[in-house]
Amino acid sequence: MDVIHHLAIPTADVAESVRWYREHTDCTIDYQDATWALLGFANIKLALVVHGQHPPHFAIVRSDAERFGPLTRHRDGTRSIYVPDSAGNQIEVMEAASLKPEAGQTPGGQ
Amino acid sequence: MDVIHHLAIPTADVAESVRWYREHTDCTIDYQDATWALLGFANIKLALVVHGQHPPHFAIVRSDAERFGPLTRHRDGTRSIYVPDSAGNQIEVMEAASLKPEAGQTPGGQ
Repeated sequence: MDVIHHLAIPTADVAESVRWYREHTDCTIDYQDATWALLGFANIKLALVVHGQHPPHFAIVRSDAERFGPLTRHRDGTRSIYVPDSAGNQIEVMEAASLKPEAGQTPGGQ
Repeated sequence: MDVIHHLAIPTADVAESVRWYREHTDCTIDYQDATWALLGFANIKLALVVHGQHPPHFAIVRSDAERFGPLTRHRDGTRSIYVPDSAGNQIEVMEAASLKPEAGQTPGGQ
């Protein structure tokens, strides 16, 4: 079965949202700046993104991501493409190979 | 760290959405009727729900769900409450104890 790598939801205030999740849930802060944050849960990452930067979406890891279309390389070295599902929900399809440590993953992208 | 149990996204046509995910991803169909479906991925469940039945949300499992407010018991035996995060995103807080097999889990709720 495929892995869902992260879920991204919108916020107008990243710092306030991070505080809310830290207060109400048990999670780690993997990355945080003014435009987005990445929280770690036991089985998945939760990205908090300011409106307009990224659409609300979730990301599926596939070893054949290129079948969905041309991939874009992100700041963290991952490569992916956004596609709508049949209902218009935005899905990020991440290339599995680009998630490997040797691909040069650093905080700063998603 | 807390577990995110499922992610729920809207669709106008559950059957069409199930076909899309079966065609484009590697997942199981854990439940399906005309109003919702539950797909299984390696690390999380994905619920496809018709508009108006449930808000788009994701569900966090907590052993202290009652701290968030009075819990509602669902058809599958789980107990939960919907709360907004600081940005207004809907979070379902599920009581961990209600997820145990002995709580009488059957398909038909989420």
